[in-house]
Amino acid sequence: MRTPVCIIGAGPAGLVLARLLELEGIDSVVLERRDRAHVERRVRAGLLEQGTVETLRRAEAAARLDREGLVHEGFELRVDGDPYRLPFAKLTGANVWMYGQQEVVKDLIAARTAGPGRLHFGVDDVTVARLGSDGATVRCTLDGRPAEITCDFVAGCDGFHGVSRAAAPEGAATGHAYSYPYAWLGVLAEAPPLSSELIYAVGERGFALQSMRSTTISRLYLQVPTDEPVDARSDEEVWQELDLRLTGGTGALPTGRILERSFVPLRSFLCEPMQFGRLFLLGDAAHIVPPSAAKGLNLAVADAELLAGALAVWYGSGRREPLDSYSATALRRAWLGQEFSRWMTDLLHTAPGGTAFDRGLARARFDHLTGSTAAATDFAEQYVGLARR
Amino acid sequence: MRTPVCIIGAGPAGLVLARLLELEGIDSVVLERRDRAHVERRVRAGLLEQGTVETLRRAEAAARLDREGLVHEGFELRVDGDPYRLPFAKLTGANVWMYGQQEVVKDLIAARTAGPGRLHFGVDDVTVARLGSDGATVRCTLDGRPAEITCDFVAGCDGFHGVSRAAAPEGAATGHAYSYPYAWLGVLAEAPPLSSELIYAVGERGFALQSMRSTTISRLYLQVPTDEPVDARSDEEVWQELDLRLTGGTGALPTGRILERSFVPLRSFLCEPMQFGRLFLLGDAAHIVPPSAAKGLNLAVADAELLAGALAVWYGSGRREPLDSYSATALRRAWLGQEFSRWMTDLLHTAPGGTAFDRGLARARFDHLTGSTAAATDFAEQYVGLARR
Repeated sequence: MRTPVCIIGAGPAGLVLARLLELEGIDSVVLERRDRAHVERRVRAGLLEQGTVETLRRAEAAARLDREGLVHEGFELRVDGDPYRLPFAKLTGANVWMYGQQEVVKDLIAARTAGPGRLHFGVDDVTVARLGSDGATVRCTLDGRPAEITCDFVAGCDGFHGVSRAAAPEGAATGHAYSYPYAWLGVLAEAPPLSSELIYAVGERGFALQSMRSTTISRLYLQVPTDEPVDARSDEEVWQELDLRLTGGTGALPTGRILERSFVPLRSFLCEPMQFGRLFLLGDAAHIVPPSAAKGLNLAVADAELLAGALAVWYGSGRREPLDSYSATALRRAWLGQEFSRWMTDLLHTAPGGTAFDRGLARARFDHLTGSTAAATDFAEQYVGLARR
Repeated sequence: MRTPVCIIGAGPAGLVLARLLELEGIDSVVLERRDRAHVERRVRAGLLEQGTVETLRRAEAAARLDREGLVHEGFELRVDGDPYRLPFAKLTGANVWMYGQQEVVKDLIAARTAGPGRLHFGVDDVTVARLGSDGATVRCTLDGRPAEITCDFVAGCDGFHGVSRAAAPEGAATGHAYSYPYAWLGVLAEAPPLSSELIYAVGERGFALQSMRSTTISRLYLQVPTDEPVDARSDEEVWQELDLRLTGGTGALPTGRILERSFVPLRSFLCEPMQFGRLFLLGDAAHIVPPSAAKGLNLAVADAELLAGALAVWYGSGRREPLDSYSATALRRAWLGQEFSRWMTDLLHTAPGGTAFDRGLARARFDHLTGSTAAATDFAEQYVGLARR
């Protein structure tokens, strides 16, 4: 099989890249290890920056997002019960959208399969067999039979555990990793959200986040120890703790059936460079951020948009400069995303072993943030993603 | 001896308080342990926020400062040799002044001694002998003889090691302390500064600061290990290291005779509350900040201004609310100062044992700061002190 671009992984990065290339008239093949139902049900992030929504519109996969997505103009920081609203839309002119990542994936798959572009699920044994200066060869097992794909470029969009990053030449990649000293328990529940906006609640019992997927489905998170088993708390205990952290125990938090639980480690990872000759890394294959600032999906889509544009220039005019600078441009944005994620994660969480002085500094940080328009604007610009564009 | 307000310590806090009270017609006695020559020669901070300058003008002790002080409108951040100027005056409308703390002290002493107000040097054995709900008694050795001062209020302005904080009732005070994992070697030199503005230089060899006291006297700092003896480096080695960190080793840094060296530990301290009945703590007696953000002197003067105003209300109308809220108001500002000092110190220094990921985040922080007007404005507002007023 021959294709200009072989895309490994049908997550948001791979699918956005495939769609944008398709609309530029550039053919590609997408190879996904899991089956379609699995990737369409995989619960992940749910906050889309305005820039991400614009990219999805350009990918012609945003019709349902524009109908069903919840447009947000602010969020609430609740510190020891005191509410403060960050009106990010007013401060920056940009909104964010609440729309589950699996819905984004469904829409992108629907758009891809409606056209002639190739998208294969259940592809096993993917390896980058050859990485040359003129192109690459990817081998895999397709529909039970060995297959070989000859391509000009490989786009590695197969996540942190994927094969793409491992295909980098020996010694060419440097990985940076950091694990936060706490984790999240994530809960998807059949319950209306407490508030129509996100609530980031900070207090002595630890952090909690109230988010949502729709007006009837809540997405909630609890800060938990890194070694807490995902089923350590009963459903009742989870609701009780969420209510304590989010409302001070008033019982105001709407409860309902818990549809899914997940243990979410908070960690950072970044691979330098993000490009090895004809192999490019995108999204989680190159960088992981903690979910606190919701940058993971947005960085992945930004990588795809960047690479699609560079490939369009290459195939359009033969100019290679945009391709050559892919890594530097994507890494700059990824580092900014890492730094903001680290800052926001530190802001929201009390680390185990923190001193009374640390807690005093944290209170002062909130005091400053809620009292300073410049500080709030800086926060808002990074939150909506403007500061990285 | 009887006085409304007994002020322990003739540093900036005590002297500003004495001056402001005097101008309100409120008598006080200032007791200083050291002799006049010593306090007038003690090299300390040298950066005055606009609010501090305004307070010194109100204290009628700013005539020489207004003539000789160097007005600054920006500073330079030099990161791995790349210059970035933070135009804080343009961003905030406020300037800062370079004028040595010992010059401020000289001017305040001159103003105090020109009037009838009492100011005693070389006072030994100061103790707060009685702290009652109606007033206090301070004992000391004055001109070699035991003396007792009966007063309405005691203002503890005698620094971190002073007796005032120790006079708080048993168990009433909570101290927060933090030591940074690096220190500064400070050098006062007979050499013109490299630049007319401050240069905060960050790089692999560690932090260096180029500051000045005048157009002919430089004040320079090197980040050093916390256990480095103050004379570990020869003068030549100090100049060489400063030149390496500030200019990349071009030899452009003007050198000259080193007039004074000092080892400057970087630490934070804060005492809660700052008020114990009739005893008030001001400046370093209540809080220490690392010198990196130059907030120590400015916080001390702000404490003095706050307490002077509260005492003026008390003596003018008998209302005690401003006095009662002294601690809460001063502490809020002190915590904001601590948090900004911590942020700026972390920004400028590479901690020993930092990882490549930490260094990447630090680069991203500078990248964000130099690329975002909101971030630069937030930094500038805190630097000039507007964010704490």
